[in-house]
Order: sequence, then C-alpha cells, then structure tokens
Amino acid sequence: MGRISFFSEILTNVFDQRRMFKSVRDDRHIDELCRALLSEKGEVSGAKLSAALLAKYSNLEPADKTSFFAKLAENFDLEPQDVVEAANQYLTGRSPENLKALVNAAEPRRLELLRRVNQVPGATEQLVRMRADLLSQMGENPELARVDADFEHLFSSWFNRGFLVLKPIDWKTPANVLEKIIEYEAVHAINDWDDLRRRLEPEDRRCFAFFHPAMPEEPLVFVEIALTMGIPTSIDDVLAETREHVVETTANTAVFYSISNCQRGLRGVSFGNFLIKQVASDLSLDLPNIKNFVTLSPIPGFTRWFSDEYAQSDNATIEKIRMFLGSTQGTLDGANLAGYEKPLKALVARYFLNEKQPGGKPIDPVARFHLGNGASLMQLNWMADRSEKGHSRSGGMMVNYLYDLDTIEANHEAYAQSYEIKAARDIRALLKVDPEKLVLQEA
Amino acid sequence: MGRISFFSEILTNVFDQRRMFKSVRDDRHIDELCRALLSEKGEVSGAKLSAALLAKYSNLEPADKTSFFAKLAENFDLEPQDVVEAANQYLTGRSPENLKALVNAAEPRRLELLRRVNQVPGATEQLVRMRADLLSQMGENPELARVDADFEHLFSSWFNRGFLVLKPIDWKTPANVLEKIIEYEAVHAINDWDDLRRRLEPEDRRCFAFFHPAMPEEPLVFVEIALTMGIPTSIDDVLAETREHVVETTANTAVFYSISNCQRGLRGVSFGNFLIKQVASDLSLDLPNIKNFVTLSPIPGFTRWFSDEYAQSDNATIEKIRMFLGSTQGTLDGANLAGYEKPLKALVARYFLNEKQPGGKPIDPVARFHLGNGASLMQLNWMADRSEKGHSRSGGMMVNYLYDLDTIEANHEAYAQSYEIKAARDIRALLKVDPEKLVLQEA
Amino acid sequence: MGRISFFSEILTNVFDQRRMFKSVRDDRHIDELCRALLSEKGEVSGAKLSAALLAKYSNLEPADKTSFFAKLAENFDLEPQDVVEAANQYLTGRSPENLKALVNAAEPRRLELLRRVNQVPGATEQLVRMRADLLSQMGENPELARVDADFEHLFSSWFNRGFLVLKPIDWKTPANVLEKIIEYEAVHAINDWDDLRRRLEPEDRRCFAFFHPAMPEEPLVFVEIALTMGIPTSIDDVLAETREHVVETTANTAVFYSISNCQRGLRGVSFGNFLIKQVASDLSLDLPNIKNFVTLSPIPGFTRWFSDEYAQSDNATIEKIRMFLGSTQGTLDGANLAGYEKPLKALVARYFLNEKQPGGKPIDPVARFHLGNGASLMQLNWMADRSEKGHSRSGGMMVNYLYDLDTIEANHEAYAQSYEIKAARDIRALLKVDPEKLVLQEA
Amino acid sequence: MGRISFFSEILTNVFDQRRMFKSVRDDRHIDELCRALLSEKGEVSGAKLSAALLAKYSNLEPADKTSFFAKLAENFDLEPQDVVEAANQYLTGRSPENLKALVNAAEPRRLELLRRVNQVPGATEQLVRMRADLLSQMGENPELARVDADFEHLFSSWFNRGFLVLKPIDWKTPANVLEKIIEYEAVHAINDWDDLRRRLEPEDRRCFAFFHPAMPEEPLVFVEIALTMGIPTSIDDVLAETREHVVETTANTAVFYSISNCQRGLRGVSFGNFLIKQVASDLSLDLPNIKNFVTLSPIPGFTRWFSDEYAQSDNATIEKIRMFLGSTQGTLDGANLAGYEKPLKALVARYFLNEKQPGGKPIDPVARFHLGNGASLMQLNWMADRSEKGHSRSGGMMVNYLYDLDTIEANHEAYAQSYEIKAARDIRALLKVDPEKLVLQEA
Repeated sequence: MGRISFFSEILTNVFDQRRMFKSVRDDRHIDELCRALLSEKGEVSGAKLSAALLAKYSNLEPADKTSFFAKLAENFDLEPQDVVEAANQYLTGRSPENLKALVNAAEPRRLELLRRVNQVPGATEQLVRMRADLLSQMGENPELARVDADFEHLFSSWFNRGFLVLKPIDWKTPANVLEKIIEYEAVHAINDWDDLRRRLEPEDRRCFAFFHPAMPEEPLVFVEIALTMGIPTSIDDVLAETREHVVETTANTAVFYSISNCQRGLRGVSFGNFLIKQVASDLSLDLPNIKNFVTLSPIPGFTRWFSDEYAQSDNATIEKIRMFLGSTQGTLDGANLAGYEKPLKALVARYFLNEKQPGGKPIDPVARFHLGNGASLMQLNWMADRSEKGHSRSGGMMVNYLYDLDTIEANHEAYAQSYEIKAARDIRALLKVDPEKLVLQEA
Repeated sequence: MGRISFFSEILTNVFDQRRMFKSVRDDRHIDELCRALLSEKGEVSGAKLSAALLAKYSNLEPADKTSFFAKLAENFDLEPQDVVEAANQYLTGRSPENLKALVNAAEPRRLELLRRVNQVPGATEQLVRMRADLLSQMGENPELARVDADFEHLFSSWFNRGFLVLKPIDWKTPANVLEKIIEYEAVHAINDWDDLRRRLEPEDRRCFAFFHPAMPEEPLVFVEIALTMGIPTSIDDVLAETREHVVETTANTAVFYSISNCQRGLRGVSFGNFLIKQVASDLSLDLPNIKNFVTLSPIPGFTRWFSDEYAQSDNATIEKIRMFLGSTQGTLDGANLAGYEKPLKALVARYFLNEKQPGGKPIDPVARFHLGNGASLMQLNWMADRSEKGHSRSGGMMVNYLYDLDTIEANHEAYAQSYEIKAARDIRALLKVDPEKLVLQEA
Repeated sequence: MGRISFFSEILTNVFDQRRMFKSVRDDRHIDELCRALLSEKGEVSGAKLSAALLAKYSNLEPADKTSFFAKLAENFDLEPQDVVEAANQYLTGRSPENLKALVNAAEPRRLELLRRVNQVPGATEQLVRMRADLLSQMGENPELARVDADFEHLFSSWFNRGFLVLKPIDWKTPANVLEKIIEYEAVHAINDWDDLRRRLEPEDRRCFAFFHPAMPEEPLVFVEIALTMGIPTSIDDVLAETREHVVETTANTAVFYSISNCQRGLRGVSFGNFLIKQVASDLSLDLPNIKNFVTLSPIPGFTRWFSDEYAQSDNATIEKIRMFLGSTQGTLDGANLAGYEKPLKALVARYFLNEKQPGGKPIDPVARFHLGNGASLMQLNWMADRSEKGHSRSGGMMVNYLYDLDTIEANHEAYAQSYEIKAARDIRALLKVDPEKLVLQEA
Repeated sequence: MGRISFFSEILTNVFDQRRMFKSVRDDRHIDELCRALLSEKGEVSGAKLSAALLAKYSNLEPADKTSFFAKLAENFDLEPQDVVEAANQYLTGRSPENLKALVNAAEPRRLELLRRVNQVPGATEQLVRMRADLLSQMGENPELARVDADFEHLFSSWFNRGFLVLKPIDWKTPANVLEKIIEYEAVHAINDWDDLRRRLEPEDRRCFAFFHPAMPEEPLVFVEIALTMGIPTSIDDVLAETREHVVETTANTAVFYSISNCQRGLRGVSFGNFLIKQVASDLSLDLPNIKNFVTLSPIPGFTRWFSDEYAQSDNATIEKIRMFLGSTQGTLDGANLAGYEKPLKALVARYFLNEKQPGGKPIDPVARFHLGNGASLMQLNWMADRSEKGHSRSGGMMVNYLYDLDTIEANHEAYAQSYEIKAARDIRALLKVDPEKLVLQEA
C-alpha cells in the first residue's frame, strides 16, 4: 500500500519536469552537443545537455537526421585495432584490469553517448523514437545498421523482462493510453471508441499490456483476449457486436485473438512471448475454470505462397481455388463454397508443415512466433475471417495455436533444435489429402 | 492522474508475485541451473529457472558462493582469441554484421546470464545483494574482480539516471522504507524512531531519496536537508532537539548535512551528484527564497593526516594540538580552547588545498566528492561537531561546501582538467598562517 | 505520499466488493425487506438486507416503484401527534433526553431506512438514482414530494462541501469517467471523443469536477474553462477547431464557459457555487497571470420572454426583431444584421435588470445562479453563439458574468438582501435606450 | 485502475490546502463568526469563515470552550413552540410543505452551523475533536448534553457505514498512521516500534482499520488478529516474542485479540460490529482454510463484581480467592493455584450468565459488545493473561467469544429480544458447581 503511493508521487514528479525539457534551448550544433555530453562537462551539466540534444534532434529535417546518424556511425565507433591489442593483453594476463580495458575498447563510444542522453524525463521515449527514425532510413542507408546494432544492444539491456510491468487495459484506463491501443492494434483494426469499448468492457474480454516505468504512457506490446466456452472457430463470432456475453467465471477458454507490438523503435527486443506466458499464468490464477489457452490467428502468407507455388498449375481444382482467392470477398455465396474447404485446408496444412525458410523455419511469420514460444498447431478454421483482409490473405481461413502449459517446454525445445512442428493429428492427416485430386463442384 | 494509478496497479501486482518466487524449488545444482538458463530451454522456462537459481543462491553457504563466483569467472568469461579474430574481421570490413560479431565476442557470457536471471519480481534486488556478497569476498579472492567488473558494467546500464525516481522521504513514508533510512544513515547516526521523526517531520527538514522502479522498497541514496537562516556553523545546532524551527518559506539556505549511499552492491554506480543537483533544482522551484545551497560536511581524514604529517614534530604548538586531537572529547573545556582555532584551521586549509593523492586529487574523500561535483570550499567551522566521532576525526571541525549554480560548471571543469580547487578567500588566506609559529596559551 | 496509496487500496477494495452485491438474492417482497432492515435483525444482517433491497428495487417496474415510494410516504412517515407531545415535553423541561426524544419523533422513519440501506458498496450511487426515479414520478404523484423532502435533507448532509473532492478532468482521465462528461455536458454539447479531446487536451483548456468518495466514478458537477487573452465575446471563437492555442502561462483570463450538474438525483444540493470559487482560487495560485475570472453564458429565457412581452406590439422594429428571432439561424446574412445589435442589447438589458419573478429575483435562471454567487453582469455579446440553439433562445447573444474576488461578497449580500443586481455601467446605460424608437434598416 | 489515481490526486490536493487553513485570521469573536456563518454572508464566504472559526476555536482556553458550548446550547437551539405549531399544521394537512416546515422547525440551528463549518480541508477532524472536548466538559456541565446529542446525530449521518473504508494496516503503512495505532491501542499496550512490528509484520498477523475519506490519517477503529492453529487459550502465548510463526495458508483460526475505538469524539457511533463482520468476511475469502473466528477477550469487571458480591462472605474458599485476586500477580506460584481454576471458572460463569444490569443486559461490557453482535460465549481460559492488569481485573482469566457465521443472526435476535445469552455447554454446566463447596488446598 504505502508502496503504491510511493511511486505515484515519483511519477507525478517526472511528469511535471517534462515541461522544463520542452523549453531548453542551446544554439550549438547537435554534433557539438554530442561532444560536450561525452566530455567532462557532460558530468556536471548532463541533464541540460541531453535535454538540449533531444530538443535539437526532434527539430531536425530527415536529411539532417541521416547525417546525424552517419556521424554516430563514423565518429563514435569503436577502434578495432585497440580491441585487438586489449584482447591480446587479456590473453596474456587474465586480470580484471585487462578485462575492463578490453570491454571498454570493444564498446562503440556512441553507446555511452546514448546512455548519457537518457537523463531527462521523457528521454527514453525519445530515444526509442530516434531508433524508429533510424530504421526507416536504413533501407536507403544500409551503413547505418552499425548504429542500429548498438541501439538494439542497449534496448535489450534497458527493456529487460525484469523491468517490464504488466498492466490490464480496460474501460477505466486513461484515455491517452487507450487512444494508443486504437492506434497500435495491428491485427483486427479498432474502428472507433465504441469498437474499443466492445473489446475492453464486457466481462468476457481482457486486454493486457507491458509498460516500461520510464515510458508510462506508451504500451510496448498488448494482447486482446476473449473468454469463451470452447475453442472459437471464427473471429467474426468472437467480435460480433450482437454476441451474447459469457459469464467470466464459467468460461473454459482464453482466446488470444490479437497481439500487437507497439514500438517500431524496439524491433528485435522481444516481448510477445513473455506477455503470453505471464497473462496465461495470471488468468489461470484468477479464473481457475479456464482450461484452454489458445489463439485465433491469421495465416498471413498463405495466398501469396499459393500463388507462387501453383503459378503454373492448370489443374481444375487449383484453377478454381485461384479464382476464389483472387475474388473480392463477398462475390461468392458461402453455400457454394462448401466443397472448397477440404482442398484449401489440405493446402494450408502443406503451407504450415512442409514449407520452410532457408534455415528450416516455417515460412509463416505468425507460426514462427507461436511455435517458437512452444505452442502447437491445433485446428484450422474455415470461413473464420470474412473481412476483405482475411479473405485476401488466406481465403478467410484462420488457425488456433494451443498453449498447453504441460507441453510448451518440450515443444519449444524440439522447435529450437530442429524446427520440429507439433501439430494436431487432424492437421497432419491433411498432408495425405491431395488437393489436386479433389473435384470442386459448384451448387 | 490516470497515469499514477496505472502504475500503482502494476506495482501491487509485482508484489503479489513475489510470494511465488519464494516457493520455487528445483533440485539441480546451481551450475546446472546457470547452463539451463543460458540454453534454449531458458527461452521458454526462463522465469522458473531464474526463480530457482535465485532461491538456490540465497541458501548457499559463503564458501559455496565463492565457488559459484569462481565458476562465473572461469566458465562464463569471454574468449579473447575470438575477440581478436572478430576485431580483425571488423578492421577488414566495417560491416554491421562484423560489428555485431565483435561486440558479442567481447561480452563475457556471464553478462547474458545475469540479464536472464532478471526476469522474476525481486530479481534486481537479489542481484544487487549478490554483488554485495561478491565484493565482500574479493579481498580474499582478488580473481573474482573480473566478475565484479561485469556486475558494475551491467548495473551502470540498468541504474542509468533516466530510470531513477526521486522521492521525498517524510513522516508519511511507509515504515518499511523508513527503517531502511535508519539503517543506512552513514554520517550522523539516527538513534531511534523519535530521532528519525525529528529529521523528517519539522517543516524546516527535508529528505529525498533515489529509487529504482524494480526495487521500490530499497532507497539507493538519500540526502538529509535542513532549511536555515544563514550558513550553519555547527551540526550540533542543526540537530539540536530543542532548536526553534524555521518557517520553511522564510529560510534562505538549504543545508545538505548528510548524504548516504545505501546499496553496497551498487558500488561504482554514482548517484550522489545527480541527487544533489536534482534536489537543489527542485527546492529552488518550491521555495524561491532559498538562495544558498551548502553542505555541512565532516573532514574525515584530517586527524589521520595530521598524525602522519607531524609525527616527528616537537614544536610546542603541534604538541598541544596532538594532545587535543588525541584527548577524549569533553575532557577539555571549550573556553580553554579558544586559541586552538586559528592553528587548527590553518592546518585544515593545508590539508584541503595542498595535500594530494598520487594522481593529483585532494586526499579528503568528501572533498573529492563535492569538488568533483563542482562545489567549492566555502567556510571552515570550529567546534562544529562535538560528538566523539567528530572530535576524533577532525577535532570537531567541519566544512561548508558551496553549490553555487552559476559557477558549478566552471568549477567542475577546472577540477576535472587539473584538480584545481575553488576555495573561499578566507580559507586560501590561511595558507599564509604558519601554525607552528602560533603560540597556544591556556586559560 | 503514503497516504495516497493508502486510499488507493481502499477504493480498489470497494470495487471488488461490488461484485458480491450483484449476486445477492432474497425472495421476500421489497416492503418486507424494508421492515427487516429497520428491525433488530437489520443490526446484524444489514449488509445483506440492503444489498437485497437495492437489487430488488433495481428490477422493479415503474409502477411498482411508484407504489414503493407511496409506501415510504405513508408507512414510514413521522407521527405528528408524537411530535407535539415531545415538543411540549421539551417546552416544560429542556433536558437532553427531552431534546433527543423530540428530534427522534420529528424524523420520518424512512430517513433511518435510507441510512441503513447505505451500507454496501455502490449503495450511495443507487440511492441517488432512486431519487432521480422519484423526481420523475412526482409530476404525476405530487404526494411523493414528502419522500423527496427527506431525500433532499439526507443528501444535503451526506454531500456536505467538506466531503467533496475536486478533480481535474483531462485527457489522462479514465475513459469511463470521460464518457460521463460527454453524456452530462448540458450547455454546449460534446459531439464525440475528438470533440471532447479538444476541450481537455490543449494547454489553454481546463476542466474540473467535484466527486464524492462513495461515488468515485460519477462526477457531481463539472466546469469547462478556456484560458484566453482578454474577455471573449463569442463561444464560437472559444470552441473553434482551428483557433490558435494560448500559452497557458501568458493567459490573463479564465473563462468558465460551461457548468453542468450531473446528478438529477441531487437536485437541491448545490455544488456549482463551491466549484467556481474553488477552481478560481486554485487557478489563481497555479497561474498567477490570470487576472479575470469570467463566464461566457447563455441567456436561455430571452426569446421566450420577448415573445410574451411584445406579443401584442406592432411596432416596426419589434416586428423585425420578432422575425429575426423566429427565423432559422443562418437564413439571414450577418452583415445585414448590424442594425439589430443595439435594440436587441437594449431589450436584453431590460430582461436582466427589470424583469423579476414574484419574489423579486431576476427571471433568467443562469443570472440567478451567477448573481446569487456574487458575480456581476459584465458585458453583452452580439453574435456570440451562432448555433441553432443559441439563435433560438437569445438571438445568438451571450453574456459575461464577472467573478471579481474583491466584490463578490458585497455583491452577494446586496443580492441576498434585496436581489439588487450589480451590472456594468454600459449595460445599465442600455436601459435608457428605447428599442422601439430605433429604426432598423436592412442593407 | 484509473480510478485509484483519480482519488490519489484529489487527496493530495486536499492535503496541500490544509496549509491555507492554518493561516486564516479573523479578529472577530467566535460567537460573531458563528452568526456570520449562519447568515447570507456564510453562503459566499463560508470557507473563510469556517476556517477562521476553527482556528479561533482551537486557540480557546477550556473555560472559553465551555462558554462557547453553552452558547451553542442556548442560542442555537430549536424553538419547541414552533415545533408544536408546525406539527399541528402537518396533522391538519400532510403536505410536503408542512412536512418540510416541521422538519426544519425540529432541527436545532447549531446542526446547520456544524454542517457549514465542515467546508474546509481538515474540518471534519476538527469537529470530531471539538466533540471530544465537549464530552470531557459534560461531567461538570451536564446541560451541554443537548449540544452533544446534536453532534451524535450529525456524526451518525456522516460516518454512515457506506462511507467507511476498510484498510489493512501493516508494516508498509505510513509511519504517521502507525504511530496512531500505537497511541490508540486500548487492550494490550504496544510498547514501541519493535513491538508494533511484531504485531503487524509476521505472516500470521493481520490488522485492519476503518477510515473516513475526510480524515484519511485518522483510524476510527482497528482490530488486531492472530492466525493460529486451534483456539488459543492464553494471550501470553499469542503475543510471545519467541513464538513460532504459523504459515498463513495453513492457519484454521482467526483470533480477534484486540479491538480499539480511536476517536473519543465519535462516541455512540458504532463501528466495531461492522469491522468484525467485514474482516471476517474478507479473511474467509482470502484464506479459505480459516474455519473459526473467535476472540480472546478480557473479563474487565470480574474482580470488581466478585469483591462486591462476596464482600461479606467468610467462606474459606471465597476467602482464599479474595486473597488470590488481591495479591500482586506473581507472588503466588502457578503450581499452587491448580485448585483455584474450578471455583474461579464457576464464579465467572455466574458473572457472565446470571448477573444483569437493570435493563437485563449482562454486566460485563465486553460481553455486551460481542453478544450484541451475535457472538456466543465459547470457552473460559485459566492463566490466560499473566500481566498485572490481567490478574487484577479477572485473576488472569480470559474468554473466547465465537463468531459463528451460521448462528450469528439467530444469536443476535435472541439477545436483542430478551438478552438471552448463547454459551457453550461447558460454561453453562459450571452454574451447577457451587464454588463455596469446593475446598482449596495448597501444595
């Protein structure tokens, strides 16, 4: 109790100071500010210098940002020759001094610069945005990737799991955070505040996000959950405005139907796996009736893969499927499509189980995420997402991944060692079905 | 507002989970847990493994801790030969891949281990304690200093200024935090809760601490402040139970009379300078009448220095001073000592201004801290600390350092470049006084 | 600090218990529950009984509510004969016992019933809604006014100024509170969340509400404020989407442009006057540059009064004004209306200064509120509210009331004693203008 | 969540305003301030007037307080003749207007005065203290009891159960609240902060208090609880410093071993019964293993009763018991006292079950409280409180009252109707033992 308020105050404090940061002005060029911050002066006037540097940066034009990053890449690098010497020293004598010298030599100076920038309220958030800028410039300026490597290294340390805080997001959450949930939702778009409310307020809905204490208004990643009776087979049912609400204490299934990373600038720092496990663990304590933890996930790369894979095929069934996938959703009556289910599911099973990236991982990005977390392929769902987007990327099909707490560790290990995929027998059986041999008849 | 509670909840949450951590059991040896945590398995079962590892560690006997640290030193080091090769690669081609490979090669594997340990509530605090254990074993096991170097490196990143939160400590602070203030006070001991209350509750007292969000019940460093009219010349006056309280809004001086670092395990990560500057800045906003920011500081090394320096002297004045310093405080009547003030102050001036460590810094540790922050020597005070401790270390003398916001940066730079010391004219003038030529007369 | 969290916890607690309240079932008739709650049993099982009673009430049909209220009126009244006797006893002997007996006899038993209902979380809110129901039934059932008198008496005690908490409402306020701001805004409708945001987020906007701790999600009354340079003459300018924001610290005027009571069930318990004074006082501390506290208020009864007052007039100017007021806003070009300003302002001055209710108060309800608070009539504004509503009720005119902290008390007293109205000289001078003598010319 | 912080802010706000209240000065006599506050002026300047009145009151000498109260009694009373007339009016016509007029006439004017005083932060607390002053003056000035009746009436409304908040008190509670727990503990004194800590921190201890939102730093009533295995028979065991802690989740019994009312000024407003029931209900949710809710209570009036009752007896056993009770605790060896247990228990059974106040209630005040709450007499304990106080008031005996949720309502009703006492068979059986016939032998 006391503790809560304890932090309440601190955070208020932080907030009030943000105003000061706005008003800092310094006429020097940003490069000069960088040098000053790394100098002795930086020790005593660090806060002012970092505020000035961030204010200056935020007003730079894109081209100036590029040249700022380029300077970080060139002028604030490590000196490999020094590293060689320090490493040789350490080879000779494994003393603590030699180790320290080596570790220092092997650290690009821009890392210390970035650490020193982070001493005014709001700086962490600004640095994350700075990296987002950097990432968007790396396509045209691949040499900036060295700077990016340091950002990623730094953020992996700062955004360590131990510092993340899990927060429920609901209809009592401050509006400025909620508007970010609307903005960052990446899977099933939230249209407006009423739509948001339908995702948060009913007793059979949950939403959780990770936050970092230094960025208390910016969610890092969030997951939306539906509590249901049984495994849902259609996102349309899950999100239907008119659906009947399930009494939370009677639900037996928690469906993770949307997971969104929020911060482009934190690319490469993974949160999603921690989030799912933490939330599953918390929910099973709160609602002991929940037995199943599953996703209801898109199959984002299916149509693209199919188009490539069967580009040359003139098999009649394939032809019809090609037309179906290429059609505008809604032009074909559902009833007419009954026959399409089996061949398409057989194709999806191939897509998941047989198609690999060069290194051996499955080609579906969502599959890589959940299988990598130790989930298994549980169930393929026909006519599960009738939205335009759902139709065009996977013919409206979706998939449930199962997070079974008893097998999650073994699954993960098998996947980590050889990218072995755990899949339900029904899905695996589909590999024996040859879609090209199935005849499609229209009503 | 919303934001505050937002965090309140999260932190409560953290707290409840701590219980779980207690109960984790795993029969494997701690070395095996380390290996597991660094393996693929660690990706999915990290929380359980790190909880188990911390529980196991906390039950180790000191000798087992030593061998645990020794293994961290030997088996989880970096491989210098690999670093040499990676550095040479990067010399040849400064590609991002080569940079990443070099940075990875130059990082001892125990760093990643420590980062992975930090994924359960309370882990950060445990790791800080682990380093405190390590430090206390380094005297006898100097080779462990390599592990310590990594701890320091890691904590410098984690306890970056941008993540620290400043908190007022007062009589409404939770008791479990206050008992730590009593415990950690290192300058003027707090005897009991009544004594603590006298330091916190009156309107002319302030106390502030830095906290880290992952250790919300553990202050990192705190400072105690008296609001006064004019520069105080005696700590006894400042702390007197019977003193009259100053009306806070009329005070013109803020006296930093005690600064204590709390966490042995954070040695080498400096907070004190940030704390003083932040507090001075906040106080000047809150209480615009405050014009002077000064300390009232001990001179911890004076008697020791004097004894060494004048060990051979048989000058009569020196002799008397030697007796005075060696006497039990209180055996000599103050009135009789009037004549001692001048020669002793002259000696203190020498001690501060002329006596240097090999590198050029002053020999007084408190002086190094404040002068390094950009403060200046302002005033020497006679009969300023009549406690036994005060008498024995510096004949009861104390010193005010001045934090003058206008000169702090210049002072710091001068000090940083050549250890030049800014001192008041009066103090500097004392160098011209030859203490051995002053004749001491007793009443 | 500690204190904050202290309450945080309590309030969370309250919230969790609300669930329990939902699930209470009791098959007895509501009348029987009332009797039980007032009996001895009520002492020990009060919480269950009150939860049951509230659950039962909330499921009653309107007709059943009427009969429930009727029973409260008849069966739980006081007994006047008993009061006469007790009063005579007290006349004879002014003992404490006689006083207590008299006070008890003079209290309708339903008051104690309502107090006993209020012992489960959420009960206060339910009781406020209960009175709202009662008020809406009083038109057809005037005899229920006796019950209403007791509700008003009770709520005046419970919602005493000392228990209200002032809260800033901004874009960080929880969404469930914000949606109530949208719902309850009674003066200038808030169209949607974007509109709301424009009223809350810019630095030159403020909003404050009173809350009662037992109803933490329900604002009681709120005021919306614009910080401006100078006294604004048009609500359209104040609310314009494209307006330039004023830097908050430079603003010299705080404009209370909308005050809304939120709880119909709290009719007769006045909050608005406290709110304005508290907010004015807080703002002057926060933003010392603010010198003027004014409103920008509608003149809701002007058109109605004019239509009645001049119903028979065939004066040409009056005729034209009648057409203007009766026209659909927008059909007349502003430029053509220049001549209308003077006669209409003259009419408004009469409306405010000469037209009285039977008791002597002005007939305009908004005027009664602000003048009763000690404000004065400051300025009439032409073309100040071009909305349909603004045109139809007062030809688009608005008025600034001035809250001058130096004269507010004297103004109030003059008003309270004889309904004397303080008005600016300009306004008072308009009484000398005879609108019927002004000739209106169209362009 | 949002909600929590929502209130956090408000409460901080309240706190900051308290400072203002201190500094209000007004030279008028307190009687004049009372009149002003009740006048029209009071409507607009109420906050200033009430602050001035409270400041003035707090500086009054006791004699001046007496005359202030006397004036409240005389000059701000109701007018009984008016009440008679209004009651007759209402007899004639039961209109809402007549009811309102009657209710107003029957309310002493000082009630409205007290309500108006309560409009500045801290006023509620001040008013509670004012009544404490009044109570301490009523012995010598019984006529002030009329004022007291109004205070009690007012506070019963303000401190309604629905407005109280239950708070756990533990080692993280703010120190300023904890020091009040030390101060207000009325049953088993808390010696110092270490003692306090032993009551709050171990996992088998709990403490809860009721607070009112307008007095957030002042507990109203609190209860201390020990979680135990089985029904404890000795307070010395419960409080022993060296006892072994019970694991909270395995405890089967919650022992309410101390309940203390904190606010003298709230006499007659009962909280204890609500507190016990709420806490029992919360604990049974939190710790489902707890099956027994019992007290371990003193028998405060036993020795006094015995001395009166048997004053004339020269029965040998009675004589010895008289000596035992009159002895200084500790002078008699426990072993020698084995024979005393039976006759003393038989006497205690008579004391509880047979001895009644004029109205029929038991003479033991603690028994009246718990039996009135629906508890039953469960068990008498020999050598249960070996403190001097425990020995002198009841020969060291204590009693467990049982709160059995299944019978609590029936018990209460039986007690409420005829003061029937539920007691365990063992206790009732002791009535058949004639203590005077038992022969005491010493070892």
